Amino acid sequence: MCEIDVVSMWYAKLKLFTVGPVACYPEVLEAMGHQMYSHRSKEYFSLHYETIRLLQDFLSTKKEIFLFSSTGTGFMEASVRNCVRKKMLCCINGSFGERFAEVAESNGVAIEKLQPPLGQPILPADLDQMLMEHPDVEAVALTHNETSIGLINPLRELVATAKKRGKLVFVDAVSSMGGTEINVDEWGIDVCFSSSQKCFGVPPGLGIGSVSDEALSLSETASNKGWYFNFKVWEEDQKKGRGTPVTPAIPQIAGLNTALKMIEKKGGKNWYFGLYKERNLKIRHGLEKIGLSTFPREGYESPTVNCINAPEGVDGSAIYQKMREKEFELAEGYGSVKKKTFRIGNMGYIENQDIDMMLEALSDVISSF
Amino acid sequence: MCEIDVVSMWYAKLKLFTVGPVACYPEVLEAMGHQMYSHRSKEYFSLHYETIRLLQDFLSTKKEIFLFSSTGTGFMEASVRNCVRKKMLCCINGSFGERFAEVAESNGVAIEKLQPPLGQPILPADLDQMLMEHPDVEAVALTHNETSIGLINPLRELVATAKKRGKLVFVDAVSSMGGTEINVDEWGIDVCFSSSQKCFGVPPGLGIGSVSDEALSLSETASNKGWYFNFKVWEEDQKKGRGTPVTPAIPQIAGLNTALKMIEKKGGKNWYFGLYKERNLKIRHGLEKIGLSTFPREGYESPTVNCINAPEGVDGSAIYQKMREKEFELAEGYGSVKKKTFRIGNMGYIENQDIDMMLEALSDVISSF
Repeated sequence: MCEIDVVSMWYAKLKLFTVGPVACYPEVLEAMGHQMYSHRSKEYFSLHYETIRLLQDFLSTKKEIFLFSSTGTGFMEASVRNCVRKKMLCCINGSFGERFAEVAESNGVAIEKLQPPLGQPILPADLDQMLMEHPDVEAVALTHNETSIGLINPLRELVATAKKRGKLVFVDAVSSMGGTEINVDEWGIDVCFSSSQKCFGVPPGLGIGSVSDEALSLSETASNKGWYFNFKVWEEDQKKGRGTPVTPAIPQIAGLNTALKMIEKKGGKNWYFGLYKERNLKIRHGLEKIGLSTFPREGYESPTVNCINAPEGVDGSAIYQKMREKEFELAEGYGSVKKKTFRIGNMGYIENQDIDMMLEALSDVISSF
Repeated sequence: MCEIDVVSMWYAKLKLFTVGPVACYPEVLEAMGHQMYSHRSKEYFSLHYETIRLLQDFLSTKKEIFLFSSTGTGFMEASVRNCVRKKMLCCINGSFGERFAEVAESNGVAIEKLQPPLGQPILPADLDQMLMEHPDVEAVALTHNETSIGLINPLRELVATAKKRGKLVFVDAVSSMGGTEINVDEWGIDVCFSSSQKCFGVPPGLGIGSVSDEALSLSETASNKGWYFNFKVWEEDQKKGRGTPVTPAIPQIAGLNTALKMIEKKGGKNWYFGLYKERNLKIRHGLEKIGLSTFPREGYESPTVNCINAPEGVDGSAIYQKMREKEFELAEGYGSVKKKTFRIGNMGYIENQDIDMMLEALSDVISSF
């Protein structure tokens, strides 16, 4: 038998440096526990449209933003089904880039892959070369921040390269949205999506994504695009003031609204991006002191999750496990480097003193091997 | 600006007799506010698999039950994409039956419709006749309880009729699962789905559905079925002890777990079904006293939501609005009878004394016209 309260107490004690659902802000958790609204009431509509406006500001966009009752992966599927007829290019840095390719193929779309060696970023020149060699690809899928290996791609330049060649651009911003700048309209991103449970510090269960006019117009003429993730169905309800076509994940939306307002109150999005950078560097400097190195190529380290090489002969999972015993939940490695690495997220509700304590504990754990 | 706390206080005061997200149990709301878990931790797996077992018991099934990060409509789309090749029969009693037909067609599947006049149930003899006339349909979609008009279909007999002719059966049990008996295995339902926000008294954001071996095996050979709702992807992770392929809506799952255990502790599922029946009849008797009649054909009234004919010359929405001013949130009519009816749900957290007060207020409102 699982006793939620016991688990919950354990987690209340545990310091989370996770990369999945991350530690949520206390104010957000409080908002999650409110009694329900009717999703056709004026009170819900007020919450809904205000959250959309806050997100539009956050992402510097005037485009439609949809709040899917799904995770971010729902938007992957949506971008493919609504916008691609035959073929797209998937840029792959790790497990989540691979997922985009799987999603595309399972929806009947042919793919080309741009896949540098693991740990290397996607570079604009390589993308340009691929697009020249494959002029028939309609869209480019990019992972902004590859959670599995803690690498961030030069998104702005990559989007510019793809747009110059007239391609649609889909951006998986699951572990970057909220943690670093994304300027949707100026950069020209067609579908830019994330999930509630990463940089916004909100529990999982909500997909967040912006959709460009071009993506919407392609959806209009797409056949066999399904209903659940049909952009046009979502657009119609949103524009007519009816909110969402399916019941929205109200608690997560209330949580996200709370988080966005909290950020606004404390200093705005640039303050928040600065906070992420600061925390991330604090962790990275601490790792250096312990003698640990990070996995991705220098200069492309993610500002939201560090992927760390386990010392020679040590299994990354063993480090994760020992840290857990010390009441710090980091994350194991993922995919092909599962055993050779471990990860430390700095998303959501983390205090500076928790970072100090975590680094101290990590130092002890590493020297115990 | 929308102030969540103000809205929340208003809703805390309002008595909910809604049919969308319904009033949630206080214990459930408390569970919604817990700090997050990693969805790859042993604590989450314990919560996950226990919730699956509780649901299997609730639905009398040994089949796979998936907890989709979506609403119930996600399962509609999934049943079509995983299991139907060319054609299916949609039985339509109202708006949600129509939605199933839309979902099927938008996924490239041809449909036949069995659609009695509004207010009439689907009868086994008519279904049998349709299946005889259209032997090429592969599956039958049934709405157990049509929320839009407060009508319940004779599910057991309908499933038997379809199975006798060797058809797959998909059941939209969104507003019935939890509120009345569904015996998945004995009756032979292939996909039986619901959402968290109805009879279980949990907030929205979670799709719950059972999937038969035959449905899983059809999924195996289905082409172009997508990734997000691919039954085989979900089955693989669940069977291998990895929970879910995408991040689960942990708060709603914790809430559902709490609700299911609460039901077990208070007397089990049959006690809970009895409670629904009792409350529903209490409301129906009250309506009779006020001189109001219900919309669906006698004998097919839903045990979870009453759809009531507005008195001659009175707009159903006006009744809804006046009740709101008295701090009772009922539901407006839906679809083509939006103005001619209004609805009273008895799902989720409702106390007997709230029903008495609601009926008293309704009596006043009706006599004010």
